[in-house]
Amino acid sequence: MTSILVSDPTLRDGNHAVAHQLTEAQIAAYCRAADAAGIPVVEVGHGNGLAASSLQLGLARVSDADMIRVARANLQRSRLGVFVIAGFGTIKRDLGPAIDLGAEVVRVGSHCTEADTTLRHLTYARERGCAAYGNLMMSHMAEPETLREEARKMADAGAQGVVLMDSAGALLPDEVRRRIDVMVQGLDIAVGFHAHNNLGMAVANSVAALEVGATIVDGTARGFGAGAGNTQLEVLVGVLHKLGYETGIDLYKVLELSDLAEEQILETVPVVRSGSIVSGMAGVVSTFAKPAARISRQFGVDARDLFFELGRRKVVAGQEDIIIEVAKELAAKAAEEVAA
Amino acid sequence: MTSILVSDPTLRDGNHAVAHQLTEAQIAAYCRAADAAGIPVVEVGHGNGLAASSLQLGLARVSDADMIRVARANLQRSRLGVFVIAGFGTIKRDLGPAIDLGAEVVRVGSHCTEADTTLRHLTYARERGCAAYGNLMMSHMAEPETLREEARKMADAGAQGVVLMDSAGALLPDEVRRRIDVMVQGLDIAVGFHAHNNLGMAVANSVAALEVGATIVDGTARGFGAGAGNTQLEVLVGVLHKLGYETGIDLYKVLELSDLAEEQILETVPVVRSGSIVSGMAGVVSTFAKPAARISRQFGVDARDLFFELGRRKVVAGQEDIIIEVAKELAAKAAEEVAA
Repeated sequence: MTSILVSDPTLRDGNHAVAHQLTEAQIAAYCRAADAAGIPVVEVGHGNGLAASSLQLGLARVSDADMIRVARANLQRSRLGVFVIAGFGTIKRDLGPAIDLGAEVVRVGSHCTEADTTLRHLTYARERGCAAYGNLMMSHMAEPETLREEARKMADAGAQGVVLMDSAGALLPDEVRRRIDVMVQGLDIAVGFHAHNNLGMAVANSVAALEVGATIVDGTARGFGAGAGNTQLEVLVGVLHKLGYETGIDLYKVLELSDLAEEQILETVPVVRSGSIVSGMAGVVSTFAKPAARISRQFGVDARDLFFELGRRKVVAGQEDIIIEVAKELAAKAAEEVAA
Repeated sequence: MTSILVSDPTLRDGNHAVAHQLTEAQIAAYCRAADAAGIPVVEVGHGNGLAASSLQLGLARVSDADMIRVARANLQRSRLGVFVIAGFGTIKRDLGPAIDLGAEVVRVGSHCTEADTTLRHLTYARERGCAAYGNLMMSHMAEPETLREEARKMADAGAQGVVLMDSAGALLPDEVRRRIDVMVQGLDIAVGFHAHNNLGMAVANSVAALEVGATIVDGTARGFGAGAGNTQLEVLVGVLHKLGYETGIDLYKVLELSDLAEEQILETVPVVRSGSIVSGMAGVVSTFAKPAARISRQFGVDARDLFFELGRRKVVAGQEDIIIEVAKELAAKAAEEVAA
């Protein structure tokens, strides 16, 4: 039986779904139940990771330090994980103190072609004795060979594993297999996959990744996460057990963990709605959804046309300013067509 | 581009999720929007098909005849489908009148090893000029070769296609591929797949079926159906278009159809909850959930243990009486273990 590392970012990626308002009591309750279920890694934090709490990205209710402290106090068997994007979290001010407070697993993320920005953080985390992993975000935007080369940089910097993030929920199982296969063949470190459910494929994509050699998969209780949500943790564990993978997780207790999450943490259970489907098909991350809806009304263009056009222009998070420009162009084009 | 027949049982399988209380106004609104979106087949009826409205299975709010009349009046391009299980619906009293009222597509269902019961209905539907399909239910319980032989009987009786129903949402993509492949190789008629989402695999399983030669897939708006729900129609259409299949369905309009369904028809959007996962893993259809929960409390046994044991005994819908017997045995076994 192949042994799989299931990592649970419910208390980090899920924070996106509640505008980063998770409370200390929620974090404590979830950690205790996750620990009892034998979840190997529990990640906690602002949705965008360490030091991301801000007016622009959303102010978290609880500080990074307090989230880590509460999680630390309520985990015994499970390892405590944090996520950091180098542009937001610095080594001295943020990552160092997080490790001082007890973070044991450090995920360092970047856009899938910008692994360079993660290297110092990865080396530092490793030197401090943490398990260090690189997260390549928006991985549908790069070819397998590019992802492998970016991952190699992370490995050389000390990463023990690299996780492909399907941030826009854009990939289908064959596209996952193709990417993971090239990475597994070309790297000596562990390879993982983190799915979003925009096209209803989160569980299937995670299994597809394992079939070609990935050994790390991420899941959140009831899929807790923005928009269509993440891979549903308890479904994933059930399917992995049915397929004969070893996860170390107690099936009944992970079901109870997800029941607890639904009762005490989730405002609503993620649903794949029409906007999420368009987001996944266009390959545009869901942070564009709200401004795109507003701007499409303002310029009298179809929000779905706008999303597909943004996808053709390969936008990534942080480039929301471009929406107005694209909407103007679509409106002008429509006016021309009417005139012609 | 391969052309796929997408069939939409939202107004039939979805009726399970609202205790068969769909109204004429809901049926009319959905049919108009489905017709506009170019959905090839719209199935309507009691969740268990023609003549199933009863105290035991649930009384429908609207009669079979009125559901068909309303759908007929609101469909132009889409064909109107009905479902019938031979044990409930007879040819003279039920199927004949349904065809008189305008049903054009007839699905005749049986347990996956009991195709014999469907043959007269299939022949009759074909003679009346309908498109006739056989539905093999609980198809996870039979081996591919058995399913192929059962399907062959249906073909010989006049069925133009056979649809495998994963009634308990128990199958994973490889298990679907294995079944569909053997059927496609061994039959001269169309093969289809109807999924439930208990293990989060409904869309992936549907695509897996198409990859090995199926040409019919079923989906319902927002997955409308009992428990974990069905394949989510609008996600399926998005994925099929991304993969290059031809469905004849307008993407934006099927997204609007699902929005309308959520607003006007669904009480709640299906969610994969813990009970659904156990149901899928055990291979026991969700109609057992409510009585099993009640009886497990009564006998002080774990409802999940009860479900897995029912799965080992290969129970099918209609055998709910066995639950008490199994619960008693589990309770006695637990008492013995305590005593030992």
